[in-house]
This record gives sequence, C-alpha cells and structure tokens, in this order.
Amino acid sequence: MDSKSKACSVRFEPSGLKIKVPSGTTLLEAAHGAGIYLSSICGGDGYCGKCKVIINHGQLHSRPSPLLSSEEIRENIVLACQTKVLSDLTVTVPKSHSLETSQVLMDTDSRIFGKLMGQTQIEMFDYEPLVRKLCVEMSPPTVLDHTADHERLYAAIRELIDAPVMQTGFHVLQKLSNVLREDNYKAAVTIGQRGGTTEVIEIEPGGRCKTNYAVAVDIGTTTVVAHLIDLTNGKTIDTEATYNSQMSFGEDYIRRIIYAEQTNSFDQLQECLVHDVNDLIITMAVRQRIDLQDITAVICAGNTAMIHFLLNLDPTRIRREPYVASAALVPPIRAAEAGIQINKRGLLYCLPSVSAYIGSDIVAGVMTTRIYTKEKLSIFVDMGTNGEIVLGNKDWLVCASSSAGPAFEGSGIKCGMRAGSGAIESLNIVNGDEIRFKTIGDSQPIGICGSGLLDMLSELFVNGIIDRTGRLKVAGDSRLTEGDDGIQFQLVEPQNGQREIAITQSDINNLIRSKAGVFAAIRILMNSTQTKLEDIDSVYIAGGFGNFLNVQRAVTIGMLPDMPPDRLRFVGNTSIAGAKTVLLGRKAIETAERIAGSMTYFDLMGNPDYMDEFIKAKFLPHTDLSLFPSVRNLKLHVST
Amino acid sequence: MDSKSKACSVRFEPSGLKIKVPSGTTLLEAAHGAGIYLSSICGGDGYCGKCKVIINHGQLHSRPSPLLSSEEIRENIVLACQTKVLSDLTVTVPKSHSLETSQVLMDTDSRIFGKLMGQTQIEMFDYEPLVRKLCVEMSPPTVLDHTADHERLYAAIRELIDAPVMQTGFHVLQKLSNVLREDNYKAAVTIGQRGGTTEVIEIEPGGRCKTNYAVAVDIGTTTVVAHLIDLTNGKTIDTEATYNSQMSFGEDYIRRIIYAEQTNSFDQLQECLVHDVNDLIITMAVRQRIDLQDITAVICAGNTAMIHFLLNLDPTRIRREPYVASAALVPPIRAAEAGIQINKRGLLYCLPSVSAYIGSDIVAGVMTTRIYTKEKLSIFVDMGTNGEIVLGNKDWLVCASSSAGPAFEGSGIKCGMRAGSGAIESLNIVNGDEIRFKTIGDSQPIGICGSGLLDMLSELFVNGIIDRTGRLKVAGDSRLTEGDDGIQFQLVEPQNGQREIAITQSDINNLIRSKAGVFAAIRILMNSTQTKLEDIDSVYIAGGFGNFLNVQRAVTIGMLPDMPPDRLRFVGNTSIAGAKTVLLGRKAIETAERIAGSMTYFDLMGNPDYMDEFIKAKFLPHTDLSLFPSVRNLKLHVST
Repeated sequence: MDSKSKACSVRFEPSGLKIKVPSGTTLLEAAHGAGIYLSSICGGDGYCGKCKVIINHGQLHSRPSPLLSSEEIRENIVLACQTKVLSDLTVTVPKSHSLETSQVLMDTDSRIFGKLMGQTQIEMFDYEPLVRKLCVEMSPPTVLDHTADHERLYAAIRELIDAPVMQTGFHVLQKLSNVLREDNYKAAVTIGQRGGTTEVIEIEPGGRCKTNYAVAVDIGTTTVVAHLIDLTNGKTIDTEATYNSQMSFGEDYIRRIIYAEQTNSFDQLQECLVHDVNDLIITMAVRQRIDLQDITAVICAGNTAMIHFLLNLDPTRIRREPYVASAALVPPIRAAEAGIQINKRGLLYCLPSVSAYIGSDIVAGVMTTRIYTKEKLSIFVDMGTNGEIVLGNKDWLVCASSSAGPAFEGSGIKCGMRAGSGAIESLNIVNGDEIRFKTIGDSQPIGICGSGLLDMLSELFVNGIIDRTGRLKVAGDSRLTEGDDGIQFQLVEPQNGQREIAITQSDINNLIRSKAGVFAAIRILMNSTQTKLEDIDSVYIAGGFGNFLNVQRAVTIGMLPDMPPDRLRFVGNTSIAGAKTVLLGRKAIETAERIAGSMTYFDLMGNPDYMDEFIKAKFLPHTDLSLFPSVRNLKLHVST
Repeated sequence: MDSKSKACSVRFEPSGLKIKVPSGTTLLEAAHGAGIYLSSICGGDGYCGKCKVIINHGQLHSRPSPLLSSEEIRENIVLACQTKVLSDLTVTVPKSHSLETSQVLMDTDSRIFGKLMGQTQIEMFDYEPLVRKLCVEMSPPTVLDHTADHERLYAAIRELIDAPVMQTGFHVLQKLSNVLREDNYKAAVTIGQRGGTTEVIEIEPGGRCKTNYAVAVDIGTTTVVAHLIDLTNGKTIDTEATYNSQMSFGEDYIRRIIYAEQTNSFDQLQECLVHDVNDLIITMAVRQRIDLQDITAVICAGNTAMIHFLLNLDPTRIRREPYVASAALVPPIRAAEAGIQINKRGLLYCLPSVSAYIGSDIVAGVMTTRIYTKEKLSIFVDMGTNGEIVLGNKDWLVCASSSAGPAFEGSGIKCGMRAGSGAIESLNIVNGDEIRFKTIGDSQPIGICGSGLLDMLSELFVNGIIDRTGRLKVAGDSRLTEGDDGIQFQLVEPQNGQREIAITQSDINNLIRSKAGVFAAIRILMNSTQTKLEDIDSVYIAGGFGNFLNVQRAVTIGMLPDMPPDRLRFVGNTSIAGAKTVLLGRKAIETAERIAGSMTYFDLMGNPDYMDEFIKAKFLPHTDLSLFPSVRNLKLHVST
C-alpha cells in the first residue's frame, strides 16, 4: 500500500500526453486516464494481446504473457493491461495498435462504409423532417394590427404547417423581436418535433432559410457510423465512421457495463461515445464546410446499452434479471445536454428500442426491410458485435440476440479492419491456390473487412484449405506460414513495403463462432415458431460488412439457411437507414414505436436447445449437411 | 473628463456596501451600482425629492434643490440624484427613504395585503393544478414483464390522468431508474403542463408525495405581491409583498424602458424584479419552513412591460408606435432560466396579455370578476400605477389604460405606504375636525395606505377642508400646518415618539390626478361604445388599496360613476386571484387566452376627447355635477 501511494508521471508518445497516477496503476488505466484509447478487446484481462505498447524508460512490473513474441520482449513491448507503473515512465503507443490507426485508414473512401439501402423506404412516409427550417414571411405590425411578435410568428408558422401545440424556448423568445426586424419580418425558423409539440428551436433572419443539416448515427458496440444529411432536400452529403472508443473497456457491452459499475466510470464511457459522435460530426462538417450551428438535429439508432451509455442512463439492469432498460422510448432532448456539439438548441433523437437486448438498430432494420408489412415470413439478420435475428411478417415478429462477436466487423481479427480504403472487400481462390482480391478504392491492401472475411472463410473451406471444423490443414498449401500467432494463411507477403496480410487459426475460429451463433439463433426462432424453411420468403442480412456481400457464401459457410440466392439480400447498414427514414419522415417514428411494441423477445441463454444448435453450427456449414443441399452439391475440395 | 476618470470609493451606511465609481458619477447611480435601491420616483430628474441621503464625509458637487429644507441642508442631507461624487465618500442611507423601510413595515400583517377575492372563481374550473405531484405505484418488473422503467412510469401516470403527449427532461430520465427502486416502484412524480405536453419535471421516492407548493405573483409597476399555495389542497398558506425595486429607475414603466434603453441596463432591470420575486418567495418559504425545492411552479400576472422585464424580453417597442409586445402569450419556461430560485426544474408561467398596454393583470381581473360571462354590461377598474378600465359583457370587451400614477398605492405621497401593519386604512372626520382612523393591525400609525387615502380625500372634500379643485383652504382648520413641503393637513402630531402623519397639497393633487385619469377613461370607453350609465349593471374596482375600500367614497371623489352602492364592488387584487385560478385549474388558461384575444384596446392618448374629459374630472367630483347626483345630495361643507 505504501508503494501504491507514490505518484508517478507517465508520458505517452508520440502524443506527448501525460498523467500522474499512483504507483501500481496499470498502463491501460493510465492511458485511459490520459485520454488515450488503447485497443483492448478483453477489457484488461490479458488475453486479447491488443494493448501492446513500447516502454522507452522507467520502472515497471509486467506479468509475462504468451501473447508476446521473444522479439517483442527484446523491443521492450509489454501488454499495457498486465503492466504496473512503478516510477515515472515514458511509453510509446505504436500506431498499429492505437485507435488512431483506424482513423488513418478512414479517408474519403470510408464514405461508402455503411451504405444506405432503399431510398424507397423514405417514400413510404411523407417528406417531413423531424427538424425543419421554414421560410416565414409576416406582414409587419401596424397601429391597426399590433399583434405581439411571438403570436405573429406562430400565426405565420401555422399558415405553413399543421402545428396545434407549439412551444418556444426562452432564449429564442428573448431574441425574437430583434431578429424579426432584421429582415423586415422575414425569418428562417427552425422547428423541431418533441412528441406532439412543435418547438421553435432557432430563429434567424430570412436569408438563412437554405441551410439546415442533420446527422444520423448508428452507434454500434464496435463501430460508429454517421451520415450528414441536407435537410432541405433529404440528400446524404457525407458519411464517416470510426471504431467505438469504448472498445478499450471490453469487447461486448456486458463487459463494459461491468467495468463501468465496478469502477463507477459511467461518465467516462459516455464521454467515449460523445467524443466519437462529435469527432464524426466535426470531420464531416469541416470537410463539407458546414457551420456546426447549422446542424440542428442528431438521430441515433443502436443497441439498448449503447443508447444508455450515450445518454448516461443507468445501464446496469440491462445485464441483471429481469433485464430492464431505463428507457426504451427515449424522448427527444437537447443535443447539447448530452454533450453533442451541434447547434446549442438542436435536438437529439433516439429511435425506440424493444427491450434490454433488442435495440433501436433492430427496430430500424425491421422498418427498413419492411418485413413488418409483408404477408409472407422473412428473416432479418443484423451482424454487429451481437448478431440479432428477427423472424416474422405483418402479423407477428419474434427476435433473438446471439453473442456473435465483432469478428465480421474486422475486430478481434489479426488483419481485420473496417470497410475503409485498402480493405480487402472480396476475394477468390482460383485454381486451388491463386488468390485474387479487390480492395476498397483499389488501394494497397492493408487489411480485410467483413465481406472479405466472409469470402475468405468460404473460399478456404471450398478449396479445402480448412476442414469442416475450420482447422487449417498444415500440409496443404504453400500459403500456410508460421506467424507470430501460430500457423496462418498468408494473402499478402510482407515485401516492397507491403504489410503482411494473413488469417490465423484464431481468426478462423472467431469467424466460425460468429456465424454459428447467428445460425443457431435462426434455428431456435424457426423451431419455436414451427416455421419451416419453405415458409420463408426472404432473408435480409444487414451489417457493416462493406459495399457488397456475396450472400451465397453466407450460405456456404452455414451462417444463413440454404435458400435460393434470389431470396437472399444484403441490405447494408439498416440501422442508419432506419434512423434516416425517421429523420426525414417524422410520421415514421410512430411506425418505429409500433414495431418496437410488437416484437417478442426470445432469450437464447435461457433456451436449453441453443447451445446444442450452436455446437452443430460450429461446423462448416453444419453437422447436418441435409440442411445445406446447395453446399453438398458444391465440388468441395474437402471430404464431407 | 480628467476628473471624471478618477476612481472614488463610495461607502453606504448602515449596510457598509461599497463601490468604486468614476469621479462625477451621481450618488444615485453609485447606489444602484452597489445594489442599494434608493427610492426615486422621478427617475433621477431631481423633482420627487425621494432620494435623500446624508453625507458623512467626502467631497461632492450637489445642485441646490427647493426640495431640501434648511434644516436638512445643515444635516448634510442631499438628493442623491443631484449629487456628484468628487472623492471617496461615506454616505448614510436614512431608513425612512430606502426601500428597507417598506420591508420593515411588512411583518405578518402584510399577509392581508392583496387579498384574494372569490374562492368561487376556482370552482368554475376543475381542480387540476398546472403542476401536480402524483403518487404513482407500479408493479416491479419481472422476467415476463420487463417493460423499461420510463415506459412503466408513463403507463402508471396515464392510469391516473389524461396525458396523451408526455415529455421527460434529460436529468429526470437519468435518475429515474434508481429513484424507482428506492421505494420499490412507488414514486412521487411532479408533472407540469407545457402547452399540450405533460412534462415529468421531477421524480422522488414515494414518501415525498405530500409536499408540493407554488407561488402566484402579481408584478405591479409599484408593488409586487406573492402568495404561497399548497398545491395538494389549493390553499393559500402565506402572502408577502414588497415595493418593486425598479422604482428607483422611474415611477412608470415607460420611464424605465427609456432608462434601460439609454443605459442598456435591461439585465439590471430584470435583476430587480427577479430579486424582488425571489425575496418574496424566500421570505415565505423560510416562515413556513418549506424547502425551496418543494416549490415547483411560479405563476405571474402583471402588465406587459413588467412581464417583459421579468423575462428580459425586449420591451422597447412597447413605447413606440405601433406599440408591439415581444410576446403576449408567453410559453412556460423553466423558472431557473429566469433566475427564479425554486426547484431547479420548476416551471414559470405567465398569464396572457392583450397588448403592449393591457397586461395579464387585466385579463386576470376580467376572469376573476367574470364580466366576460355576463349578459349585462360591467365596468372593471384596476387601480395600479396605471389605471386600466374594461367595459363589456359576454359579447364584447373594450379596454383602456390611463396613467393614473401610483398615488393610491401609497407611492409619491409624503406619508403614503402600502397596506401593511401601521397603515391608516380607514378614516373619518367627525364634527368637522375630529379625525378618527383605524390602522392595519391596530398598530401605531406610520403612514396611510390606498383605502385611507381615498377616505381622506373624500373626507377632506365632504368636510370642506379642500375645495372642488382640491385646494386646502388655508384659513379653515387648526389641523393645517406649515410643513417642509408647504401647507399640509396633519393627522398625527409628531409627539411621544410618534411620527408626524400629514397630507400635503402635492399629495392631494396627485390623488386627484389619479382619480381623474380613471374617470376620464371610463367616460371615453362609455362614449365610444354609446353606453349609458343605466346600461351598466356592476362596477368592480380592484387594486392594492388595503383590506377594505369604502367604494361609495370612490364615487364621492368622482373616480367611479355615480351608481347605487350595491352595484359597486371592491374586489381586491384580482391580478393575483386570476393567477391562482389558472394555477389551480389548468383549463382556465384557455379561458384567459380567449379573454385576451377578445379584448379591444382603445388608445386614450390618440383620442382627442381624453384630455378634455381629464380636465373636467380634475374637479371634485367633476365639473358637471349632474353626473354625480348622489354627491350633490350630500350635505357638503363646500360651496357647490
């Protein structure tokens, strides 16, 4: 305890950020304290090996780890979570391991990341944004018409739109009279819907009518995606994405809730998300030369835990029986209250969630795919860090959530990355061993995104490079090399300044676990509702895989049920698509609430058959090949 | 300019408050700067003589004034507004001239000040306060019923009340889950109406259901009156009043608007009102041992300028053609936003105004007297600093505003005071020269309040001590003495520690101007609408005169038209009564808005006949005695 009380100064290079911590603090904690987000999938348990840093000088106590190679040990590389500070220290955070790397990868090409499906969806609802800027023209007062300015404005607004219940914020009220006179009673009035109330959130002189923007955000456990929308025409004018900064507190949200609860760091976890969202907004605003004051709304979809963290609502009961959210229908609040840096009177909307484990991202997916309107049954799969499944039609909707893990988001995979410039997005193995791939932006390959990983797993399987359990066949291929993490399949050799790109046995196991979780969940929902495969009309798969997904290969690896290819559809990021639908057609919020209220949740963990189905699905494509006739008919290079 | 730039330190005794000001600053400005409110009716023009202070030591330049007696000059008394600081100064603010005096007078007896008429009024509307505390009991969540906390709360509220559109503030949302669990899903929920939206403004554990208070405030140009109301039963449990601190910036609100505009001191004028309202609230809360956090609403009525000052809305167009208010229907805001020190999420409501010159106090009066519901015509007179008149019935309402001045509020009158302990509230002259009076609280007389002044004017007239022009007949009465302010009529001699109480010629002239303004306005409204006296069913007179008003005497002096006494009614402070009606029956707000929308304003200043009527009404009771047969029939000691 005595040594613990000594204060040590830790300096992180290359940022130069410093922090004083008590002796005995781990480097991971110190980094968090200094505002540096080290990648850490395991949340500090020492088994993901992501939080490697280089010690420049100083004293420390580091626990030995099999995740460090002898070369790394020679280079003074340690796992930050397993290393305690004992004196003043200087530490270098390698580019490849900090989140900055991801941001470096994210140039303009990343705009295609999280592409929106279906402009059609917007057409279902009248174009009536949640926040609108109206051009209002009033006749100036006279001796015979001395209606007060505020009531004059209301009357003029009501000539344009239906707004029976109106409200004006105090600060708007205070400046109203002067603004109205600046442009002789022509004004640009920004109005926002807050439930049944139409609120005047901003007033400007008439000339400012034509600038009004909003941001739609999909807050995933692993990735955060944002779209910038011009509210005057509904067009998406920019997109941006980043990894969720909370990742250093644990891969999944349950781990993060535990961390926050144990260390009472809810504020810190909120700050991570707010920081991410602000970063995305500011990046896009700067790129498009838009004043942040002209962004008047942010609309978010995400799982229930992420929405709780964003708003600093208590998330602790999400993980405890009976699994209760603080709020599923979150009322609109002023974005500034949550720390979001848009117009200081702008509004923050969150799409409605179903329950603790089925978030608004899934409600958005159901809305976007319109499965809630159809006679026939559909399956909707959202591959995020959790793989959520919805089965149903216009009469009923059931859903479940599997702990898929973020493998298909490029996280927890040695060379995994989000769908940004340089990511391998599709891949074929020709003639047994010749690898052909395509990168986003046709850039130098620097990693593999979700669609590439799916292709890879399928091709390794179809070409017999892995067996039905996913094991790399050591004696099979010249591409198999021994890397730092054991045997691996090499796609790109490290030469001419090119980075090595390879997939490890551990990567393959992660990917198979993800797909198995999803398929097992589909089976449970189908069995529980006595749904047969022939009853299913369509399967929609959503997620941040990339621009294109070879959906047939999702069948080949046994992630999706074996259906004709024309009934399988990759729908991209439906979470953000749903958020945009509501943003641009405010009546859609009622549809979203109706969907949220009508979904029945199946708890997989409480289902004794789930583990059984999961184990069967951990084979490629499945233990029961009769479920995958199309795969059986492939000319597999693998003994079935 | 050189001497002006020298900084001088001015210290005010007995408070000890200090301020540094440039040499050349007037003492009145210095006092304002130091937060000391010196009485100043003329706004610093040097003719009211109210801002007398004593110079202890220091250099100054003081302009000579006929308002200072030779004795005062010997005692180093100066008019603060006419005195410039030239060096460091120490100044004593005499008790009798600072506003503290009024506060000293205002012990518990002042509760009767601004008495509420008509509990009946409340009965017209369902008892449904604008802000209510509900005792909500929910069944705790189970595995089979894991509705989120926020939606569980909404459902429980909707079982108790009709609330189709609801909203929850961000901070309430954040603490909701923990509060619900503190008392096993029993909660005290404070809900407030904001237009058509029901807002959850506070949530506490169930045990806190029984404490909920609100304050109703009448913000007059001269006086501010507040009532503390227990919202659980609608009872008024305390009242308090004070002079409006803005008085040192001018007697009427037009002068204050000019001052604020010229010196850009809108913030300072707002602070005055906020300070007054907070003072009243805190005084009552301390006396009743109520936590300010348990006061969840404040509702205000007042003239349009006062409401603008309170909220710091721009009031400058009120005084300029075409006389436009910033807002007549002010939406509810959070009281804390305006600086009102109640529960930090409590709401501030303002009753609707008609126009720049007819405020919500008058709407409140029309609502309270119910003249808007009657077949027959009524006249409503509100005697404040302005005398507002309403004439009409259920079909039409016309109104006008006369610059009555605050004489009947005890302001601008040598021995005038508000209706507090020690105020002479009624007075008779018996046998020609014996004066009998009654004070509030039967205390030692220290001044005269409105009802006493009315009695006095009437009795002086009836007993022939003043003539029909109001002139004191010098050779008539042993009570006539020569005071500092010239000839005066003495009620109480200065002996045995008693303060002299007297009425001066100037006081009488002020009172006659007030009554003349009101009567002239009534005549204009009647003539403009071709209303004859016999068409009028009732005359209501409201104002802070005191507890009782001998309304017949208001006829004797020619303030009100000559009607049978049973048709004349003193209704007290209808402004605060109306505010309470809306507070306790939220549907009444719609009635108030309907009334405000239906009133037609007559501009007296633009009416060529007004000055003519005013001059005729400056006689007692009037030049045309045929208008006052009941007065003609009095055995007047005055030659008619």
